[in-house]
Amino acid sequence: MEELILVKIGGSIIEDSGQMTRFLRQFAKIDRKKILVHGGGRSATALANQLGVEVQMVEGRRVTDAEMLRIVIMVYGGLVNKTLVSQLQACGCDALGLTGADANIIKAHRRENEKIDYGFVGDIDAVNARSVSQILEENFTPVLAPLTHDGQGNLLNTNADTIAARVAIALATRYNVRLLYCFEKPGVLEDVRNEQSVIPILSRERYRELKTARRVASGMLPKLDNGYLALEQGVRSVSISHADNLDQIMNTNTQRQGTRLIL
Amino acid sequence: MEELILVKIGGSIIEDSGQMTRFLRQFAKIDRKKILVHGGGRSATALANQLGVEVQMVEGRRVTDAEMLRIVIMVYGGLVNKTLVSQLQACGCDALGLTGADANIIKAHRRENEKIDYGFVGDIDAVNARSVSQILEENFTPVLAPLTHDGQGNLLNTNADTIAARVAIALATRYNVRLLYCFEKPGVLEDVRNEQSVIPILSRERYRELKTARRVASGMLPKLDNGYLALEQGVRSVSISHADNLDQIMNTNTQRQGTRLIL
Repeated sequence: MEELILVKIGGSIIEDSGQMTRFLRQFAKIDRKKILVHGGGRSATALANQLGVEVQMVEGRRVTDAEMLRIVIMVYGGLVNKTLVSQLQACGCDALGLTGADANIIKAHRRENEKIDYGFVGDIDAVNARSVSQILEENFTPVLAPLTHDGQGNLLNTNADTIAARVAIALATRYNVRLLYCFEKPGVLEDVRNEQSVIPILSRERYRELKTARRVASGMLPKLDNGYLALEQGVRSVSISHADNLDQIMNTNTQRQGTRLIL
Repeated sequence: MEELILVKIGGSIIEDSGQMTRFLRQFAKIDRKKILVHGGGRSATALANQLGVEVQMVEGRRVTDAEMLRIVIMVYGGLVNKTLVSQLQACGCDALGLTGADANIIKAHRRENEKIDYGFVGDIDAVNARSVSQILEENFTPVLAPLTHDGQGNLLNTNADTIAARVAIALATRYNVRLLYCFEKPGVLEDVRNEQSVIPILSRERYRELKTARRVASGMLPKLDNGYLALEQGVRSVSISHADNLDQIMNTNTQRQGTRLIL
């Protein structure tokens, strides 16, 4: 099977134009089929503040009322997505920006939760591997915003780490998929206060121990939970690393940067 | 050659959800290859007002400084485009939203003007007919936002009426293209104060007379100038009508609604 590189970029990199440019140059150079998934939470929060809309987070998840949904559609689907696409085009990468509604690629339903009303937050029902493959086979590079749709005309806010893993899983029967989570940290840390303490290889068993001991940063949980799920369901490899190290990870057989997950 | 219907929707329809839903249902029903181009100026102005950003118009064109560019990227590329896409998906139309940067479909350069600095306003250099055709041949329905790019990482604000005509022209060697401008008026009016005075067929000569006599509403000029250019350059037919009449125009051989342009 042909290789497919799926990179998720998030964290503070999105809002740092210098770091973002460095990252996009590295991403554009990958000479294989590839997909970029992006976040943009900090930009959404900044616009909400400018508009005087209150930001409510519950357990790291953004409560998305109608006003916040408008904001994330504008920021994720518009500002962040189109900025990345135009910059990738400038690097010679034929990028094509998509939300889950475009080409019906990701269907979801509103999250049901008895205790908390998350509002317009979507849990994924299905990834349309056929549509994504059609776009890949035309040699376009999909750039996915963290938005899904319910098939009834409503967009929904969906975690970008989850989107990355679910798209990787859906494509694993058609491609040899490598999933990389890139952000501003060098990997999963043994000690969250020490950036030198990167764990090079993290087994699921060890992850469970760290999680139980509450030694994993909360922002890492969606990457790790989704990452092990992806490995279980046919994705060939999953890594977590600093955005600056994409080149090195792509060009060395033995990964010397970041954290590689193993079952 | 296969038929291709290119519809531009604009004016106050975009902001009226009832009218928009009626229009999108009609558009989704067109059982031929099709493209939708949209505006969204009123929504951009509304967000600018909310954010306290001054809106400057010169001769009907929006002066687009860096702050206004961010706003139109969010509104055109995000809010309006993705709302239309998700609603078309709900009508069973496999819509795929695009700006000119996506799949590199429309390249432009910043407008040069000695007297007025329009800022990030783009004049079109080239439409990538190949990329648009690839997307059409995969049976997706492109939904185009009025944004282009300069190939160097910058998005630009470009008039939607112009985008519609230029895309129609670029595709005229591959498809039998019908171009329709839809908005909240019944067509080109003999008397701008009388909505009953629709001109059913408007020759270019008669248009020039009306224009010289200043009897054409300023908002109609880009549709008419672009419309005649499209006819000259191989587009099979160009009409201007109320959004509600799309169905009738599609389903009757003799057009009884709106204004049809002839050379």
